[in-house]
Parts: sequence; structure tokens; C-alpha cells
Amino acid sequence: MSKAKREQTGRFAYEGLDRVIHEKARLGVLTSLVGHPKGLVFGDLKELCGLTDGNLSRHLQVLEDAGLIAIEKGYDHNRPQTMCRITANGRQRYLDYLKVLEQVVRDAASATKAGPARDGLPNAASAGLRRLKTA
Amino acid sequence: MSKAKREQTGRFAYEGLDRVIHEKARLGVLTSLVGHPKGLVFGDLKELCGLTDGNLSRHLQVLEDAGLIAIEKGYDHNRPQTMCRITANGRQRYLDYLKVLEQVVRDAASATKAGPARDGLPNAASAGLRRLKTA
Repeated sequence: MSKAKREQTGRFAYEGLDRVIHEKARLGVLTSLVGHPKGLVFGDLKELCGLTDGNLSRHLQVLEDAGLIAIEKGYDHNRPQTMCRITANGRQRYLDYLKVLEQVVRDAASATKAGPARDGLPNAASAGLRRLKTA
Repeated sequence: MSKAKREQTGRFAYEGLDRVIHEKARLGVLTSLVGHPKGLVFGDLKELCGLTDGNLSRHLQVLEDAGLIAIEKGYDHNRPQTMCRITANGRQRYLDYLKVLEQVVRDAASATKAGPARDGLPNAASAGLRRLKTA
């Protein structure tokens, strides 16, 4: 590996992509909640995120266990209501995550300028590559 | 739910966040490969993504099974070499994924302007919420 490449070690590791936040459904939940600092009731969150009751409950539990959200159960006109809101810690971790996500998008935008994949490997002959399988 | 909110149904579902690509390690692998259309050898990819042999192998298999990358085994100066490159289909799916990821970042940037979470729920009193638990 060249010196330039060694300096790139871990360049695309994206350690900051916190798996608790990065999971697709939870990313939607947190993005909804960060835009509603007063909180959202369970039903509205479910609609916004296109999740089933069971799925949303499961992901909310993960987020609450991680301290990213607070869940408050109460009543609205005598009907049970579950209110979810992002915690101050959750907001900070979301912002930290977002910085890394923005870096991914910048890297991706820069990388895709490198041009489309070619049918063959231009350096295959010189590297003596033997084609065994392709997708 | 208000009409405005009904129109927001699935607004944060992010269906286009293809789970094969979204997984953190695979996102790093694909971002590396999309920037190297001629392909990368296993060792370089491992360094760039900060992955172990086993982890990288496992993720490469998932990506190959999904048709996103092609793996070619050959030799370089009589040493076995595994070359990985993104396929045309993989590149297109990555670009489609990237569009959704950019939307997430835009949503997040817009949402975080809503201001930090507050300690209490400003509408808790009027909604008659009873505080049961917090994270």
C-alpha cells in the first residue's frame, strides 16, 4: 500500500455513525422529534415515520434505553396518550451524528464524480487478474 | 391528527434508504468503491474502511449477492489478490440511495433549526399529561 493510501487508513470507517441513530427507522423517528422539541404523540410519530405500532414501540424503547428520548405516558381528554420527545443529550448526539452523515454525503458527492464503473478492469491485464466470477 | 399532519404521512419513512447500502460498514465500502471505478484490492479496502478481514468478507458477500459489487480473484506477481469493484447497477443504486440521504440531511438541518429540546413539555399542563417516567 502506498504512503498516500496508508494516510487514508480508516478514511471511510465513519466511526461517528452511531448505530443507535443510524438505523433507518430510528433515524426517521429522531429526525421527526428533533423538529418537534415539544414532543410528538405516538400516533403522529407513527404516521410521520410510516411504522407499525409494534415497530415504533420497539424502536422507541431502544432510543429511550440509550437516553436519546423521553417517553411520558399521560392522558388527553381522558384518553391514554404517549408523548415522545428528544432529550438534550439526544439532540446533541443527533447533531454529532449529523456531522458525520454530512461528511458521508460530501465524500459520496466527491467520489461519484470519479466516473461510472467500467465493464472491465482496465488494469486487469497488467495485474494478471484471472476473472473467476462477476455479479 | 390535523389535515396538515395527514399530508405528512410517511414524511420521515425514508423508504429509499436501502438497508443493504445503509448499513454503516457497507456504506463505507461502497463510498470507497464508487470513488475507485477501477476497483480496489481487498487489503486497501480493509484499511480504508477500518474493518477486519472477517467483517469485510462478510459485507462484501452481502454486496455481491445483491449485485452491487463484483469480486474477482486473481494474482498479482504470483500472490493471490482479490479485486472488488462496484457494478453499474451498484453505482446506480448508490446514487439513488444518496439522493435520499441528502434529503435526510436537508430535513435534519431544517429540523434542528427548530431549537433545542426543553426540560419540560410546554403543553403538558393543557394536555393533562401525567409524568410517569423519563430517560
